[in-house]
Amino acid sequence: MEEKVLKAIQDEYPDAFAWCYGCGRLNKDGHHFRTGWQGEQTRTIYTPRSEHIAIPGFVYGGLIASLIDCHGTGSAALALHRKNGHEVGDGIEPPRFVTASLKVEFVRPTPNDVPLIAVGKIQEIHPKKWKIDTEVFANETLCARGEVVAVVMPNTFTRKE
Amino acid sequence: MEEKVLKAIQDEYPDAFAWCYGCGRLNKDGHHFRTGWQGEQTRTIYTPRSEHIAIPGFVYGGLIASLIDCHGTGSAALALHRKNGHEVGDGIEPPRFVTASLKVEFVRPTPNDVPLIAVGKIQEIHPKKWKIDTEVFANETLCARGEVVAVVMPNTFTRKE
Repeated sequence: MEEKVLKAIQDEYPDAFAWCYGCGRLNKDGHHFRTGWQGEQTRTIYTPRSEHIAIPGFVYGGLIASLIDCHGTGSAALALHRKNGHEVGDGIEPPRFVTASLKVEFVRPTPNDVPLIAVGKIQEIHPKKWKIDTEVFANETLCARGEVVAVVMPNTFTRKE
Repeated sequence: MEEKVLKAIQDEYPDAFAWCYGCGRLNKDGHHFRTGWQGEQTRTIYTPRSEHIAIPGFVYGGLIASLIDCHGTGSAALALHRKNGHEVGDGIEPPRFVTASLKVEFVRPTPNDVPLIAVGKIQEIHPKKWKIDTEVFANETLCARGEVVAVVMPNTFTRKE
């Protein structure tokens, strides 16, 4: 049984901010990570492609880091959107976050042929700055832990320096 | 002028450990990160593909995390190999490391149309455990900082649990 996130925040990012290789629905080559609520926690489910290996049979760390990263920004967007009185599907564009910092602890080798489930706990540090603690499971076994500090996308991000 | 790493540790990983999506020379779909010495520091150079964006014009964080990750394990392998009396090109297979933990601080938006240069400083924590502090530059501007703790690949990594 493959579970699926039904209402994902990434489905409602404004088009201009929906190009992320990790989680942008408009990036045809990307991972299309999708993040939604599960009770008070958040969840992203992704099955790695066969080439996403460290050595045959195990997921490479960069994919796990990417999953935790986009799961973090998506979770922060879900949380601020809810704080603002909105839910995915109500027709209001959600806020868009970027990552200030990312930490990943690789707990054990992660099999690459099953869905990975990232589960996030969200904490508001400041109205524009949120922390997301994430656990990544494969076959219901904890494989990695992560922490993302996400901030509302600053205007500087939309112009080249 | 695009610089190039001439003698890369990843060119000499044993075939069985050369499949990493980030840095494995045998993974045809991967990034092929290559890491070599530059004096007492290490260096990995990579130009992101056009799809590796967060929003148009800027690199997505997962790629930067991947670069720092594989640059870290490659740097640790270079350092232990040298400690063992060997250099890339002398025909001796180098040790292979895996990542225990990864930290990334995103300093500023990173342009995605120029080479990224990761520069690493290496510290031995224990003969089998090394720390690599990395700075990632684009156009000679610091865009991200990272820290990797890498450990010699344990036997458990070569069998599924």
